[in-house]
Amino acid sequence: MSTADAGFDAAFQQRLHWSADTDASIEQAVTDILAAVRDRGDAAVLEFTSRFDGLQANSLENLELQAADLKAAFDGLPSDQRTALETAAARVRSYHEAQKRASGESWSYRDADGTLLGQKVTPLDRVGIYVPGGKAAYPSSVLMNAIPAQVAGVGEIVMVVPTPRGERNPLVLAAAHVAGVHRAFAIGGAQAVGALAYGTQTVPRVDKITGPGNAYVASAKRRVFGQVGIDMIAGPSEILVLADGTTPADWVAMDLFSQAEHDELAQSILLCPDAAYVDRVQQEIDRLLTSLPRARIIAASMTNRGALIHTRSMDEACAISNRIAPEHLEIASAEPHRWEPLLKHAGAIFLGAFTSESLGDYCAGPNHVLPTSSTARFSSPLGVYDFQKRSSLIEVSEQGAQSLGRIASVLAHGEGLQAHARAAEMRLKP
Amino acid sequence: MSTADAGFDAAFQQRLHWSADTDASIEQAVTDILAAVRDRGDAAVLEFTSRFDGLQANSLENLELQAADLKAAFDGLPSDQRTALETAAARVRSYHEAQKRASGESWSYRDADGTLLGQKVTPLDRVGIYVPGGKAAYPSSVLMNAIPAQVAGVGEIVMVVPTPRGERNPLVLAAAHVAGVHRAFAIGGAQAVGALAYGTQTVPRVDKITGPGNAYVASAKRRVFGQVGIDMIAGPSEILVLADGTTPADWVAMDLFSQAEHDELAQSILLCPDAAYVDRVQQEIDRLLTSLPRARIIAASMTNRGALIHTRSMDEACAISNRIAPEHLEIASAEPHRWEPLLKHAGAIFLGAFTSESLGDYCAGPNHVLPTSSTARFSSPLGVYDFQKRSSLIEVSEQGAQSLGRIASVLAHGEGLQAHARAAEMRLKP
Repeated sequence: MSTADAGFDAAFQQRLHWSADTDASIEQAVTDILAAVRDRGDAAVLEFTSRFDGLQANSLENLELQAADLKAAFDGLPSDQRTALETAAARVRSYHEAQKRASGESWSYRDADGTLLGQKVTPLDRVGIYVPGGKAAYPSSVLMNAIPAQVAGVGEIVMVVPTPRGERNPLVLAAAHVAGVHRAFAIGGAQAVGALAYGTQTVPRVDKITGPGNAYVASAKRRVFGQVGIDMIAGPSEILVLADGTTPADWVAMDLFSQAEHDELAQSILLCPDAAYVDRVQQEIDRLLTSLPRARIIAASMTNRGALIHTRSMDEACAISNRIAPEHLEIASAEPHRWEPLLKHAGAIFLGAFTSESLGDYCAGPNHVLPTSSTARFSSPLGVYDFQKRSSLIEVSEQGAQSLGRIASVLAHGEGLQAHARAAEMRLKP
Repeated sequence: MSTADAGFDAAFQQRLHWSADTDASIEQAVTDILAAVRDRGDAAVLEFTSRFDGLQANSLENLELQAADLKAAFDGLPSDQRTALETAAARVRSYHEAQKRASGESWSYRDADGTLLGQKVTPLDRVGIYVPGGKAAYPSSVLMNAIPAQVAGVGEIVMVVPTPRGERNPLVLAAAHVAGVHRAFAIGGAQAVGALAYGTQTVPRVDKITGPGNAYVASAKRRVFGQVGIDMIAGPSEILVLADGTTPADWVAMDLFSQAEHDELAQSILLCPDAAYVDRVQQEIDRLLTSLPRARIIAASMTNRGALIHTRSMDEACAISNRIAPEHLEIASAEPHRWEPLLKHAGAIFLGAFTSESLGDYCAGPNHVLPTSSTARFSSPLGVYDFQKRSSLIEVSEQGAQSLGRIASVLAHGEGLQAHARAAEMRLKP
């Protein structure tokens, strides 16, 4: 595909298209599950856990994973996995501490007349973290959701993770231990989202729910939004590579695969002004594909959703990237800092040949929960700020009330809100 | 009402209850309107504007309010209104500039091995601001939505405001002039939200929509969320006053009224440990009520949704306030800084006798768009941060890729994502 092709725009738009529309039957099932959990609490959660996860329990207390369970899972890991989890957690923590210092502290100032203005930044009291079970059970996601909450100072972090037929993922439990999760329950699906949003006899009600999940979880999160806060609803994962032809072609091919292997709907795109390099990447794709265990998924994703695009220039490639607003954006260039200022919209920007997206996914430090489906136009990576909220602070001095009171009075009368005006006028000296 | 009453908790919970559930007929109407706007663009917007606003136009271009229209509206105001609007705008701008300096700047740092980590903060390209027409047409809301966007550096601010039967509110148009709105259209309702979210032949597609509206507008914003960003969906306005008995009782009564006058569902609550003072506030309420033009609305709100509550102590009052997480929280106390640290959840905190909520509503500087219905537990005032988004920056050095690559490889293999592992391993030196 080339940007010089007739019909490129339409063909490319078609390739980018993805719809978040969900099944009406899923919506109805989720409505029913949430209503049941709201009405009947623990009993409903137990029923759905039995039905959907094949896991029986006499009480929800029996589905709580104890701190000792999490620690035992960690202690039971091979030492290279223990070290990798701890090192990754330390780097993620260090980055999010820097983020908190840069943008998450309270501030205030006083006017000349003594009036104080500012904002108080405080952590959320209690948050819920949803961790998927089964094939998409990622310990790295536990770190990426729990550590920003911990750095923010959240009082209690409650994890839910389904354990179908009782099968626990030791890496997920170990990650919860490393990340400082306070309580954990072996429940999942819309019933777990409902339990966190409304609270049950056993599961405490939280203020916000974050973390990825399947279509039922996504639908449930949308529905409880307002009752609790939620993070973004994620679409399929995406990578866009801007290449000037200087990064080894096999590295770029493998970076495209590392997105495509997530699932058939994942999207991997290369934009490059060097036609011969585009061909070399294609050759590496063909050569490397069969060597990978997830080759079938990768091939489906690359064929149906991927694109290697020959552009007129790197500038044009940057302009196209801004239209896409990709989740992951690699600048595979010898001059990454030349192009970075041109790139306005992206979840995360990976600069230079050595910065494979997978390093960012696991352990560089920044969060791997990123806005998908063009939402980087208006939203941000998960961060400490998602686990804090702000309260404005206003302390008007007696002197300040004289000047501000006259302005407020004029504007309030202009809006027909006379009590507003009178409240300001009462503070005026006679 | 007293916290010492038997059954206080249940009675108070009942008084606080408010449901955001919307009418099924509104939901269906909004679904149809949005689909029509998406499919037929300008033509559909013109039809709905004719039907709902009684306003005919040959083309949507004729409904664009020109910069000269906004300026003429400003020039035509009495001078006290012009001065009040400009002074309020300058203070709001100054506060939001401080907010941007405190929490909205890009940052980065380098590790010892040369790896760069940080976040780039950028403004949204284009935002839409919804301004209600009719009885709730508030010029102050234009300032509070447009100025943070302007301070953030948003490229284009597009205002929509319905003008039923062609009636324009000169204060609203003048506020748009003062606040630096780039384009404005005389359209409203779900059709205006759809036009901003999808774009039409005439109305440009935006990246985020903020601003208050009626049930149709709220429903439309919920539905386009994901396609574009939105701010919170506001419930009825609320004020909670914590009083130690030192603020003149008539001031507090008028502050309660200034919330109650918004509409019958608005909620005004007083918490005070001094029973005699609670009685005095009640007497002032009875005395002052009839003097106000909006007495009927105020009386309905105070009777059905308001509460004057005698507490055991100021500490208990603070604890109750934290359970409520009010939108507006006044500390009507001689020692506001004694109580402020105890208050964890509130949209805005007004300290001391001279800080009437109405000063904050219009001109103190902080934003008056605040989280309602207990959502201050997890969300924040509208701010510059709502018109910015962040992109993570990662540049791993060759040396950094050696240590990070080994960690990423272990974790990726643990998650069964071999392409992630291989992408990291390829960067390792042999």
